[in-house]
Amino acid sequence: MASEGPVKEVRLTPIRNGTVIDHIACGQALNVIKILGITENNIYSSISIGMHLTSTTLGGWKDIVKIEDRELDSKTAEKIALVAPDATISIIRDFCVDRKYKVSISDCVVGLARCSNPSCITNRGEPVETKFRVVSRCPVQLKCCYCDRVLMNISDNLL
Amino acid sequence: MASEGPVKEVRLTPIRNGTVIDHIACGQALNVIKILGITENNIYSSISIGMHLTSTTLGGWKDIVKIEDRELDSKTAEKIALVAPDATISIIRDFCVDRKYKVSISDCVVGLARCSNPSCITNRGEPVETKFRVVSRCPVQLKCCYCDRVLMNISDNLL
Repeated sequence: MASEGPVKEVRLTPIRNGTVIDHIACGQALNVIKILGITENNIYSSISIGMHLTSTTLGGWKDIVKIEDRELDSKTAEKIALVAPDATISIIRDFCVDRKYKVSISDCVVGLARCSNPSCITNRGEPVETKFRVVSRCPVQLKCCYCDRVLMNISDNLL
Repeated sequence: MASEGPVKEVRLTPIRNGTVIDHIACGQALNVIKILGITENNIYSSISIGMHLTSTTLGGWKDIVKIEDRELDSKTAEKIALVAPDATISIIRDFCVDRKYKVSISDCVVGLARCSNPSCITNRGEPVETKFRVVSRCPVQLKCCYCDRVLMNISDNLL
């Protein structure tokens, strides 16, 4: 019988250097992990993930992802915004928050997701980058600028 | 600038009640999560996941999964063994380890994975449960008792 010691709730310990993605809508941590390109064969830094944690900000449940020794480019941050529009990103350096910002979605989402319409010109092998207008931000809804198809299942169609 | 306080390495805080799956081969936490049936739309208890953590037992890197307020049945534990044969499972009650055991794989794996051979009788709509002999334990390799096909990609073929 070994005691693990008392604690108030499930949470993740701080990281020295890296990125904390907080206020992820509950359940979306797995999609954030996918966006970060983390698979069973592609892990080069320590990652901690909390799912279904109490959130005072979101007023219910949230997920959180901490990834060590990595900072995110703006494209990755915008992809995260598509699945977790309330997420905040904190850059951690030597255990301190060096920079913190809320993710955001441009009015025009270019090259981040594929259109779900197989007949869309962006799916026909032409050198045309995908482009969507944001028609709703809560929930996030994107409409293809070429074929007007509203994108369903954004997380399954991220590039 | 907010300090998150010092800590030696990424790790997860203890849970009050539930299950800790430790010594998971690095990268396999995502498959363990899949085995637990956790998806973006199916989360009812708090989960914390650590990936690519230093392991003295495995002598390299390991993953760990903690799930609150849930205990695993033997079928789930054996599925976990197929993707993480060195995993240990600890049942936590009131912050203490109530029971701890190493996962194990039976010599004959029944009804846990599908055969990857589409012509196998177990994939032809017949009321035949899948059955594999364990031909190697490190790495885990299973051979179908009906068609002799060695199962590749066990994690993609779990039932």
